[in-house]
Amino acid sequence: MQALWLENNQLTYQDNIPIPKPRQGEALVHVNLAGICATDLELIKGYYPYTGILGHEFVGEIVQAIDAPERVGERVVGEINIACGLCDTCLRGHFTHCERRTVLGIINQAGAFAEYLCLPLKNLISVSESIPDEVAVFTEPLAAALEIQEQITIFPTNRVLVVGAGRLGQLIAQTLVLTGCHLQVVARHEKQRQLLATRQIGWVDENAISQHTFDIVIEATGSVEGFALARQAVRPRGTIVLKSTYKGDISVNFSSLVVDEIRLIGSRCGPFAPALRLLENRLVEPTLLIDYRYPLSEGLQAFGRIEQPGIFKILLFLT
Amino acid sequence: MQALWLENNQLTYQDNIPIPKPRQGEALVHVNLAGICATDLELIKGYYPYTGILGHEFVGEIVQAIDAPERVGERVVGEINIACGLCDTCLRGHFTHCERRTVLGIINQAGAFAEYLCLPLKNLISVSESIPDEVAVFTEPLAAALEIQEQITIFPTNRVLVVGAGRLGQLIAQTLVLTGCHLQVVARHEKQRQLLATRQIGWVDENAISQHTFDIVIEATGSVEGFALARQAVRPRGTIVLKSTYKGDISVNFSSLVVDEIRLIGSRCGPFAPALRLLENRLVEPTLLIDYRYPLSEGLQAFGRIEQPGIFKILLFLT
Repeated sequence: MQALWLENNQLTYQDNIPIPKPRQGEALVHVNLAGICATDLELIKGYYPYTGILGHEFVGEIVQAIDAPERVGERVVGEINIACGLCDTCLRGHFTHCERRTVLGIINQAGAFAEYLCLPLKNLISVSESIPDEVAVFTEPLAAALEIQEQITIFPTNRVLVVGAGRLGQLIAQTLVLTGCHLQVVARHEKQRQLLATRQIGWVDENAISQHTFDIVIEATGSVEGFALARQAVRPRGTIVLKSTYKGDISVNFSSLVVDEIRLIGSRCGPFAPALRLLENRLVEPTLLIDYRYPLSEGLQAFGRIEQPGIFKILLFLT
Repeated sequence: MQALWLENNQLTYQDNIPIPKPRQGEALVHVNLAGICATDLELIKGYYPYTGILGHEFVGEIVQAIDAPERVGERVVGEINIACGLCDTCLRGHFTHCERRTVLGIINQAGAFAEYLCLPLKNLISVSESIPDEVAVFTEPLAAALEIQEQITIFPTNRVLVVGAGRLGQLIAQTLVLTGCHLQVVARHEKQRQLLATRQIGWVDENAISQHTFDIVIEATGSVEGFALARQAVRPRGTIVLKSTYKGDISVNFSSLVVDEIRLIGSRCGPFAPALRLLENRLVEPTLLIDYRYPLSEGLQAFGRIEQPGIFKILLFLT
């Protein structure tokens, strides 16, 4: 089958990869559509070691499921963390933190930039007919955005700032605006601002932020500058949610965190079911983010394009 | 009057300081007993700029209160943060974070290592007759310990680790053990371990900590090594409470905080009323920590002694 293969920081297109064989409890899924995400770019840069098929945002169709033949033909999205179900962390119910987890296209599990992938049946969530593929493919990043609301309470009266208006920042802002909170998004580029405006979300220039006034700041840039901005914006006893990964260590004034009693929260993967509900109700509109669609066979060109400024989302399709 | 005066990183004993004059809404308090705290040592080292009378842990007696003559003679402890009551932070009820606050013996407010001090009447909390001075003098640090329980829920089933078994670590441990949680305290020195044992609190050697297993870790050392230990001990989705200030910046792997969804919380001053309740009920026994008592006139000797290893608390008394 066709796939995009990552090895030694080099992504290649290959058309002779064997179709994976589902193990017990797993299904074979034909990938309809897959999305390129910042994590894919970080994996290529070698921030984390990974060799294999890249990709973890997808929508597809179950084509084989020995233990559940009734699910063949089902259109699905997939929870990317494959948990053992047996370790202390799993027994506590924190499956996305399983000590022995593999992660689709990220840790020891062949990913979604391919014609087919395998995932455990319990990871595959049915997609309602009313959600088209180009919407459903955003379930995984939207779930990651919603992890914020799983971790902290956002009160309707809160002043909330999102630092960063790229792919993830836009999805986060679209979910936060639903809380009724006072929301502002730091957006540098005109295209980012326009996209926010289509959802009636207010943007703010980074030089015009009221310092030490925001109850909650979401840091979605993964940069030292983004964190510095978040730290300046948050009020005493406020919360900073770290929603992106960072290259290398960051030097932090811990004493000021203590004196101001700041709360810092790391945030990663989130819940799929509520993401699908918001997509079905069209309360979130991710298709605004789609810039280009490429056939998988032209996947390398897609990766060449996504690092250009002003690009939100590129999808890879299989026919 | 007598006082310990800090200026240009130099602490001096002086006996000719004018007795402060209470302003409207303030009281003049005679200091009976005052405690030396790590923050005093940091102020002397110049971590924060301060010139004036040092000291913020005290118990005393109101000797003058023009607006409330009925309170003269009352034995009191004092909330050290003096809030304006008018700024956005005060209006939100976060008085200890007042944007214009002064802080007893720390920021622009003459402190407690003196015969007399002034504080607003609303900062002065009456001490029950059943609480002796040598117990009441621990109200402020005990309140700071209880700030943890104000900020996070400690479930009785939680595994909790306190890193550091000095002055503050001991008080924190004494309050945490009351929750019924599974509590361990990292204690290096025999005297620290013995003190914990008198309260049936378990200690652990820093090399014997189960990694990534604690739901909550309290970092009470204010050192880079202490934070590293806390980071190793906390489980995915767990919480680290930063309870001490740190010298300079600390370099942190933010990506690992994101991947493990760790929560970091800075924690400073806490509520006096519950601290007094625990002291009155003898549920916390701070007098175990007292190593020495010095008259204020020998305060400089006391400061010479407190940095020696194995010293928990030194009190300064006035007769």
